[in-house]
Amino acid sequence: MTRLSRLRAREFGVELGSMETGRHNAITDVDGVGVGHSTLIEGDSVRTGVTAIAPHAGDLTEDKVIAAVDLFNAYGKSTGLPQVIYEGVLETPIMLTETLNTWRVADAVVDYNRERMGLDSRSLNVVVGETNGDYLTDNKGRHIGVKHVFEALDFARSPAGRGMVQEGNVGGGTPMTGYGFKGGIGTSSRVGDSFTIGALVQLNCGSKEDLMISGVPVGREITLPSEPTISSGNSIMMIIATDLAVDSRQLWKMAKRAALGLARTGTYSSNGSGDFTIAFTSGKKHHTKHGDDFLNPVYKATVEATEEAIVNALFAAETMTGYEGHIRYAIPLEQLIEIFGRYGRDFSSR
Amino acid sequence: MTRLSRLRAREFGVELGSMETGRHNAITDVDGVGVGHSTLIEGDSVRTGVTAIAPHAGDLTEDKVIAAVDLFNAYGKSTGLPQVIYEGVLETPIMLTETLNTWRVADAVVDYNRERMGLDSRSLNVVVGETNGDYLTDNKGRHIGVKHVFEALDFARSPAGRGMVQEGNVGGGTPMTGYGFKGGIGTSSRVGDSFTIGALVQLNCGSKEDLMISGVPVGREITLPSEPTISSGNSIMMIIATDLAVDSRQLWKMAKRAALGLARTGTYSSNGSGDFTIAFTSGKKHHTKHGDDFLNPVYKATVEATEEAIVNALFAAETMTGYEGHIRYAIPLEQLIEIFGRYGRDFSSR
Amino acid sequence: MTRLSRLRAREFGVELGSMETGRHNAITDVDGVGVGHSTLIEGDSVRTGVTAIAPHAGDLTEDKVIAAVDLFNAYGKSTGLPQVIYEGVLETPIMLTETLNTWRVADAVVDYNRERMGLDSRSLNVVVGETNGDYLTDNKGRHIGVKHVFEALDFARSPAGRGMVQEGNVGGGTPMTGYGFKGGIGTSSRVGDSFTIGALVQLNCGSKEDLMISGVPVGREITLPSEPTISSGNSIMMIIATDLAVDSRQLWKMAKRAALGLARTGTYSSNGSGDFTIAFTSGKKHHTKHGDDFLNPVYKATVEATEEAIVNALFAAETMTGYEGHIRYAIPLEQLIEIFGRYGRDFSSR
Amino acid sequence: MTRLSRLRAREFGVELGSMETGRHNAITDVDGVGVGHSTLIEGDSVRTGVTAIAPHAGDLTEDKVIAAVDLFNAYGKSTGLPQVIYEGVLETPIMLTETLNTWRVADAVVDYNRERMGLDSRSLNVVVGETNGDYLTDNKGRHIGVKHVFEALDFARSPAGRGMVQEGNVGGGTPMTGYGFKGGIGTSSRVGDSFTIGALVQLNCGSKEDLMISGVPVGREITLPSEPTISSGNSIMMIIATDLAVDSRQLWKMAKRAALGLARTGTYSSNGSGDFTIAFTSGKKHHTKHGDDFLNPVYKATVEATEEAIVNALFAAETMTGYEGHIRYAIPLEQLIEIFGRYGRDFSSR
Repeated sequence: MTRLSRLRAREFGVELGSMETGRHNAITDVDGVGVGHSTLIEGDSVRTGVTAIAPHAGDLTEDKVIAAVDLFNAYGKSTGLPQVIYEGVLETPIMLTETLNTWRVADAVVDYNRERMGLDSRSLNVVVGETNGDYLTDNKGRHIGVKHVFEALDFARSPAGRGMVQEGNVGGGTPMTGYGFKGGIGTSSRVGDSFTIGALVQLNCGSKEDLMISGVPVGREITLPSEPTISSGNSIMMIIATDLAVDSRQLWKMAKRAALGLARTGTYSSNGSGDFTIAFTSGKKHHTKHGDDFLNPVYKATVEATEEAIVNALFAAETMTGYEGHIRYAIPLEQLIEIFGRYGRDFSSR
Repeated sequence: MTRLSRLRAREFGVELGSMETGRHNAITDVDGVGVGHSTLIEGDSVRTGVTAIAPHAGDLTEDKVIAAVDLFNAYGKSTGLPQVIYEGVLETPIMLTETLNTWRVADAVVDYNRERMGLDSRSLNVVVGETNGDYLTDNKGRHIGVKHVFEALDFARSPAGRGMVQEGNVGGGTPMTGYGFKGGIGTSSRVGDSFTIGALVQLNCGSKEDLMISGVPVGREITLPSEPTISSGNSIMMIIATDLAVDSRQLWKMAKRAALGLARTGTYSSNGSGDFTIAFTSGKKHHTKHGDDFLNPVYKATVEATEEAIVNALFAAETMTGYEGHIRYAIPLEQLIEIFGRYGRDFSSR
Repeated sequence: MTRLSRLRAREFGVELGSMETGRHNAITDVDGVGVGHSTLIEGDSVRTGVTAIAPHAGDLTEDKVIAAVDLFNAYGKSTGLPQVIYEGVLETPIMLTETLNTWRVADAVVDYNRERMGLDSRSLNVVVGETNGDYLTDNKGRHIGVKHVFEALDFARSPAGRGMVQEGNVGGGTPMTGYGFKGGIGTSSRVGDSFTIGALVQLNCGSKEDLMISGVPVGREITLPSEPTISSGNSIMMIIATDLAVDSRQLWKMAKRAALGLARTGTYSSNGSGDFTIAFTSGKKHHTKHGDDFLNPVYKATVEATEEAIVNALFAAETMTGYEGHIRYAIPLEQLIEIFGRYGRDFSSR
Repeated sequence: MTRLSRLRAREFGVELGSMETGRHNAITDVDGVGVGHSTLIEGDSVRTGVTAIAPHAGDLTEDKVIAAVDLFNAYGKSTGLPQVIYEGVLETPIMLTETLNTWRVADAVVDYNRERMGLDSRSLNVVVGETNGDYLTDNKGRHIGVKHVFEALDFARSPAGRGMVQEGNVGGGTPMTGYGFKGGIGTSSRVGDSFTIGALVQLNCGSKEDLMISGVPVGREITLPSEPTISSGNSIMMIIATDLAVDSRQLWKMAKRAALGLARTGTYSSNGSGDFTIAFTSGKKHHTKHGDDFLNPVYKATVEATEEAIVNALFAAETMTGYEGHIRYAIPLEQLIEIFGRYGRDFSSR
């Protein structure tokens, strides 16, 4: 679980927005937030996993965090979202996994609360998001179980979980595809005047010809050994964290901006694409009464961090062969350098 | 699974609305709709189950039905609802169970599709609703598994599932409480000019002092051997079926009226009450283009059928002792006769 | 503008819920809230007006109040609601009028702010609600103008506006119909442990046969000199005020409960019925972070106050003859006494 | 009203998406749709107008069109949208104007229906959208009246209204600002396999530094004689038309994609930006029952047409001086050529 080999987009010189990033350029730059992955790669056909995003390391059933949901295109099997919309809080970490494992992951969070947290909940609103990885993994096998959920949650709640975040073919993102290239987990952050915004995505959406990076239509310029065929999976989960003292309505308006960051990477949001955003704040205090104009830099940060998280997922993910011999190619960075050069973005020199 | 001993409200003479019922006064009066229960009562502490409502007996992944959802108060762990809202279709039967069994039931529907239907779905939007029965059942045990889901679905899809519907302490309703009395499953129907409406509820909401039946404040008039203490479970799942050729938007407006039927039984919808309505139509043809005023009798039928389904749940459910020796009393029909008499509703003479 | 002749429902002995009312049993029991009517009754055909509900007497563009909206059935021409939903605040009083006067009333509020408040707003989210009174008034004449809006707002912002509230054939309610009887404005309040809830309705919905009061099916029992024919107007505006320190999401959940109070009076919410609820709080401080269970008595108060406001509108409204000789009869209180007696509600003796 | 002097973006060689446009590259490419402007430019301070988009030239109260609304960020004073959401139809043309004229325009549509259409409606759900032009026009004067509304509607319903569409400083767009440059009205269309999509925008949103055209960050590269200061107005109305046989739910999903087209031009959607989309279809027949995957090219067309409509607004609008001597500069096309060249988009040679 310690591979960080490929450069991230920003290290490569890709410019995505104008605001400053946090220390790790990750959702973990938001105070208290931890991320853990459990990655399951076995044999020829199993390429799956689960990712946990913990708003804090404590007991969320007791110390809930304010939260909100935007359903840009609610094609998806996620659990727990209606209650978040009405109650405005999260009472579990957010879990990300592969479609057909969704319910097993949710069920295993109940086990985790009992066994690891000593909680005896008789009701629990478990939040699980999913995207479909059936092109690279035998998803019908539903291989994710209690032990993977425990591994992801344990790590997310540990001090190590609050540092650098692994991206690409890890956790829930293991078998995913982004714009016809290998996709998966990506993250980024922005720091403004008295606030931090973090984004983490599980990228599994988009068609190759639509991909734009920093406004450059790289998708149609890049050539691959074989052009991607359509997979049935085609979604994105976007998680937005902040430390701002905002209420659920304000978080919802922030969450809606994540779709604008997604749009900058070129997708039109296909019908079968579940484009969900879940936002939460670790901020303890409520904002004082005033208008929402103070949110403008926060919205901008949300757009930028989401866009960069998506691009980071593409930069980090490596070529993978899986189920039925299917292959997804990593986005070829050498071609990117050349294409960016032609489009006036000489980022390789940075 | 064959107890139908207690009289239904209408047989008793309770008047609930003015429209005619269908043959069975049940959701199964809607052509093609089937209902199946699996009830698990074991030892002192296990009182649970699962109920399946099948819009038709065929393959719903192929022959989807138009559907809609109303989230009156979305405190609940139901699965699959966001996609129904956006896509406007159901691709599985609706399953009703107890809170902590929700995800196991969803997962088992995948098994059912594979093993019983021969389907090999790599994505499936399973719809499960739940209410919390922890007062009478050891819900932490999550006792519902694949075999119970198979039993409920097999029955719902059989010819027998399209007839009379068992009510009260059956299926997902087994451990539930309604207005401080024993609750559970109830159903009713209304037939209008060229349409049928069916309602089925899993009743687990309300406080005793608020219960009204046919406008009579019976809750505060009835005395029980011991007054109910508050349970953590407090929700209602309302399923509305029709054979009308309507679109999803129109079904959504119908679904919203179910809450009005609920309101007639007296609840104010407590904060922890998940008051969800899922509506679907077995109608094959699309309506022709015109306004929605033709829906007025349909709305009225929805209100009436929902109200009567709730009252039927109370009439059918029998006193139950369960987890930790907790007891829920059936609504005492003898007292009802006397109270109704005082309120000018001499229904016992009918 | 000083008629208060008929008894209110509660004075008559009708029991509607169990909570205590505030001093005036009116929305003005919420600290700071004022109500003003301008009633225009001229010749044979003009029966209209406008009602203003001011959350406080000051400058709302500067000192906005937290607000929320529930669209139970959004058939209606109200203005300003989308922005209230997103921003969670009101920046004008709420105006209630007759359908075709909606935009003239909104435009006149801009004049009021300039001329009476000394404000020079270049943007203003004016909130106007409406119901259709074309059965009794020549609504095509659009008779409401600046002077009526000024009169209603001046009164609402005066000390007198914060006292007793006129009900029935006044202000925006002048030509309205409720359940086939003469309808109009009604109000009520409830006081709980550390909070007050006020409701004000402009009642123009329902069919006679559906009317229930305190659970008694009075609509079908009452006989009128001539049975009501259907009018095109068929809506209700429900305004909920509180002094609780809640956020917009919580107010929204409160607002949704108003529809439950409406349901208790028997309507199924016809397709052309605009059933809108606007809720606001005059509470200055934000609630501290916790769950929403503390709202349960608040929900109950909202249901009760809404139900009673509707019944008060019916009790207060007097028989009116108007446009094209149309007539709407006041609900006959003598018949009510007799009917209630038969249904075990001997309220005349109180 | 006949100025079409500046080149449109596509004529200039700017590439925006990959699909084909319709004949006029305008919303009027959708069969039956007409557009009319009334532009009011008087003295130093009056720079305003109104634009009408007529789904067809007939009586919309009788022959309603299926419609839907997306409220991406509902900061705005538009009228009529809640009813469109619930009923799924338009019964008037869509009017676009300046904020404080909104209600006068709505009221004038009633007059139009009476005087020009011979209709005697006693209820009418008038749809008006607005953006705030107070920087260049004396909006407090509310200069738009019945005659302007009549002019715009007459033209929109005439054969001439169904041809080329004027863009830039016309109609409702007259005083508007886009990304710090002169904005206003823009339009575009896309033609797919058996469908046409048209978009028309009233552009008044965005900050200069955020503007991207075809992925090129032109906003921060362009220098103006004086950098734009922030104006209070900051919104966009997006109108989407199609001839597809779709229902309101499907139109709503299409409408949501307009925000993705907006995002491609760089905005993060500021808090005070009312970003509304209204979609309608002139298609008479209902789609047959199947999934929504056939909408994928339609979504793509919606994104592309919206993006190009926005860029067309910027290309068409000319420098304007107005209220209090304020000036908004047209986007300098010469600089654009140079900047595009540096970014590998040598469009001047086309």
